[in-house]
Amino acid sequence: MKGRNLWPIALALLVGAQLALAQTAPQTDPLPSWHEGPAKQAIVGFVQKITDKSDPAYVAPEERIATFDQDGTLWVEHPLYTQVRFCLDRVPAVVKAKPELAKVEPFKTVLSGNREAMAKLSMQDLEKILAATLTGMSVDEFQAEVKKWLETARDPRWKRPYTELTYLPMLEVLKYLRANGFKTYIVTGGGQDFVRVYSERVYGIPPEQVVGTASGTKYGYGKDGKPFLTKEAKLLLNDSFAGKVEGIHLMIGRRPYAAFGNSSGDREMLEYTGAGPGARLMMLVLHDDAKREYAYGPAEGLPDTKVGTFPQALLDEAKKRGWIVISMKKDFKKIFTWE
Amino acid sequence: MKGRNLWPIALALLVGAQLALAQTAPQTDPLPSWHEGPAKQAIVGFVQKITDKSDPAYVAPEERIATFDQDGTLWVEHPLYTQVRFCLDRVPAVVKAKPELAKVEPFKTVLSGNREAMAKLSMQDLEKILAATLTGMSVDEFQAEVKKWLETARDPRWKRPYTELTYLPMLEVLKYLRANGFKTYIVTGGGQDFVRVYSERVYGIPPEQVVGTASGTKYGYGKDGKPFLTKEAKLLLNDSFAGKVEGIHLMIGRRPYAAFGNSSGDREMLEYTGAGPGARLMMLVLHDDAKREYAYGPAEGLPDTKVGTFPQALLDEAKKRGWIVISMKKDFKKIFTWE
Repeated sequence: MKGRNLWPIALALLVGAQLALAQTAPQTDPLPSWHEGPAKQAIVGFVQKITDKSDPAYVAPEERIATFDQDGTLWVEHPLYTQVRFCLDRVPAVVKAKPELAKVEPFKTVLSGNREAMAKLSMQDLEKILAATLTGMSVDEFQAEVKKWLETARDPRWKRPYTELTYLPMLEVLKYLRANGFKTYIVTGGGQDFVRVYSERVYGIPPEQVVGTASGTKYGYGKDGKPFLTKEAKLLLNDSFAGKVEGIHLMIGRRPYAAFGNSSGDREMLEYTGAGPGARLMMLVLHDDAKREYAYGPAEGLPDTKVGTFPQALLDEAKKRGWIVISMKKDFKKIFTWE
Repeated sequence: MKGRNLWPIALALLVGAQLALAQTAPQTDPLPSWHEGPAKQAIVGFVQKITDKSDPAYVAPEERIATFDQDGTLWVEHPLYTQVRFCLDRVPAVVKAKPELAKVEPFKTVLSGNREAMAKLSMQDLEKILAATLTGMSVDEFQAEVKKWLETARDPRWKRPYTELTYLPMLEVLKYLRANGFKTYIVTGGGQDFVRVYSERVYGIPPEQVVGTASGTKYGYGKDGKPFLTKEAKLLLNDSFAGKVEGIHLMIGRRPYAAFGNSSGDREMLEYTGAGPGARLMMLVLHDDAKREYAYGPAEGLPDTKVGTFPQALLDEAKKRGWIVISMKKDFKKIFTWE
């Protein structure tokens, strides 16, 4: 009988101990691949502020929108955008279907495989290649092509699939924001249809949350009477520079509370985000780690580049407006998952 | 002591009773404003099928996309689309800002208030009115104008705000689908920016899930240096007929599993939805209740109309393809919340 009487007390003690444990357990670090520093502090501080109902900067969950540039912000963009590699690799197949292109520039140069000559291709040349390799087929065919290419193509430096060249610290930011009620979007100068093929698997971002450069499609019927969409050459949205803000309005219809980029093509997106009331978070990834990844600016005396330019003027605007610059060298403990 | 010994038994009985209750409690009808019949059965049957993991037609939650036309499918569109009423009401303000328009058609006719003359305005006239009243201002100004108008404008027949003219049975479908993991989208021929102002409040559909006819915007800076977007007259997406499918691809990037419409402008959206593999649900609202709402076709011998035409050819295609026709007269127990 004595033993029995102790039951309720033991139970109460047990429940109490569990409650105490839950209250004092140390919080798991949501950003383990980040060094302690102002960049990490800015992210955590922002999230704590806007999720705290007692804070004047509190933001209702449905308003929590965060936008991320992709190339150079979420994954490697040097020496060449991944999508451009896909387009170059597609040229032989395109020429096979249209043999007359073999003798026409810029296709002739691409087919030659001469890397030096290819590096000299102009922006107009590149646009011709993009148009020929990204349009004219059905949406389903295009998705199948991209999927197949991603499975076999390897980055020449790391000998890994391109989808493994994502930045682990940024994947942690995506997850951390989503765990705090954010809808995370990719807002990329790259092709919307291209990124959508792998965004869910690679970033946990569903296709409907990918805003990118988009060409029109045309509805039609196959011989079997089944409807399908053909990718047309007509440009609907050029999702770079001011086009990123116009794309955000078209596809999301709300101003983001947080925006992440790495180049002058992201400037307007960060300006627009920062112009909203309340607490906002604007961040720029600086590629200053030639050893572990690449180094380019030309801000901070880093080598100049055509791919993902981060000019001094952008750094000046960042300082003026309170945007946080992420140094890959100083802020990222690890860069890739497989390191 | 006897009483004490009964405690564990009483507790066990109580817990058992609650479990039994949870297991045998009749499920609440998710569609109480629908009469029992093939339309209601089709909706409930479809949802049960695609959410049942043991069914071959099971659909993963992230793939559950449902698209709804708005005018005539979710709310009243007769005798005139609500957005057109907004545009007509805006004409005096536009003419005040640009007095030279007062003597120019079609503005002259609209200002006259002569309803007979207004009813005769051509499609081109209407487009001029839409362009003048929907573009040229900042996105923020436009949103504020729509919000203000919705607060004061009243439908002439029911003397109620337009946002109260939604169909209760369709609101139940939206909620039921969302409760079963669906993302619900509006895919409307109406203006995306217009519908987004009230979609969250009225339908529980956030702005980023509204696909509609969209004009481009232009990024610029105000005198205070703050960035803002101006609504331009350049049409980006004409979200009707085949444009609905093109809009779905642009804004969602996945094929819907369920699509709801009411007119020939929704035909392609239903075709495209139905062309996907697995179980799909395609439904058309037929306005056959002149007493409680409006009656128009011309299918089924109903009066012909220019607004929300449901031609015989659409009914024939529906029968051929297994699309379900919802009769407002026979399927809707109640039409409006306030009935």
